[in-house]
Amino acid sequence: MLRKSLDENIEKLKNEMLLMGSQVEEAIEKSIQSLKEQDVELAKQVMEDDDKIDEYELELEELCTRLIATQQPVAGDLRTIIVISKLATDLERIGDHASNIAKMVINIGDEPLIKPLIDIPRMTDIVTNRLKESLKAFVNLDTELADEIARQDEEVDLLDEQILRELLTFMIEDPKTIRQAMSLIFISRFLERIGDHATNICERVIYMATGDWDVSY
Amino acid sequence: MLRKSLDENIEKLKNEMLLMGSQVEEAIEKSIQSLKEQDVELAKQVMEDDDKIDEYELELEELCTRLIATQQPVAGDLRTIIVISKLATDLERIGDHASNIAKMVINIGDEPLIKPLIDIPRMTDIVTNRLKESLKAFVNLDTELADEIARQDEEVDLLDEQILRELLTFMIEDPKTIRQAMSLIFISRFLERIGDHATNICERVIYMATGDWDVSY
Repeated sequence: MLRKSLDENIEKLKNEMLLMGSQVEEAIEKSIQSLKEQDVELAKQVMEDDDKIDEYELELEELCTRLIATQQPVAGDLRTIIVISKLATDLERIGDHASNIAKMVINIGDEPLIKPLIDIPRMTDIVTNRLKESLKAFVNLDTELADEIARQDEEVDLLDEQILRELLTFMIEDPKTIRQAMSLIFISRFLERIGDHATNICERVIYMATGDWDVSY
Repeated sequence: MLRKSLDENIEKLKNEMLLMGSQVEEAIEKSIQSLKEQDVELAKQVMEDDDKIDEYELELEELCTRLIATQQPVAGDLRTIIVISKLATDLERIGDHASNIAKMVINIGDEPLIKPLIDIPRMTDIVTNRLKESLKAFVNLDTELADEIARQDEEVDLLDEQILRELLTFMIEDPKTIRQAMSLIFISRFLERIGDHATNICERVIYMATGDWDVSY
């Protein structure tokens, strides 16, 4: 009876975490949409919505701590709960990065973009897909998927590097582009960090499944 | 008897965490020393030493999980152990930022610095002091200190903003400074993030002491 209740509670925790995950994905997508459309109002909304993501983390923390305290899970269940509490922190940080992107969009304002956005939306697609898949790997305890997604981190790093190099040439050629180029470089860097968190999530999934922390990408 | 053993184990965990903290402080200081002295070899060493910090996190994670599983702590003890496992993640991320700073130092190489370093060392002093004090607040469960240190985050943010503005003027005046100025801006940003982690640690101390997650700075 107690056993069943623990399973149910862990299921509930996982669902809460997935809900938090969708909010975070939405925040990333909206932040980049606000960049593409130079929609300062949407960017402001992303920043405001970040409070809800922060609250989600606290709520999940509380649920995890209470579950450990009241049901004293062991082995795999305990590991799962601890991992969920860590994933909540990763998701909260990803939310912060989406909010940071929105802040840069507000900095850019309605000044015409110095170049068409190609790599940043591409990077966003890769990063949000990696986040989705990493959470899927978590729910299905799919270590193969986790391993595959973790390895895609390099692609994001290369894109970030490419964006930096390209924008540097703009800055050097025309100092008037410096401020905006800086904002775009920061946005690329925030996306790269979101990618890092997706990698973290994958690593935690592997730990949860194998108890083996010794994985690094 | 079991009770005493749990206290002893928590004490051991705290000490391990403090040792990790000193390694991380050293990494920050060495990374900025490598910048001041443009010592690429030292920067490389900081990057290599980061592996040890990563291992520390895994070791602490394992100790925390094992302690929860074998001794089934409740209430305050459970909260302390969970907080230690979270602090280990903050410390590991701070180590990553020190390593990122070192990477920028390597990028700059032996190219003469575009300006004397004033604000970055100042920011480093504030940030490492905040980190030390936040860990002290944790060990002594000193919520007043934690509260005070958390509030100092704004000072670091202002310095980061000031560094950005100053370097932007250099970049605009002389495009040849752009690459180095970018590296310095990133270094300032990494220090600012380290400051954020010190704030996280303070918030967790307050949570640990009060069970109240509802603190934000």
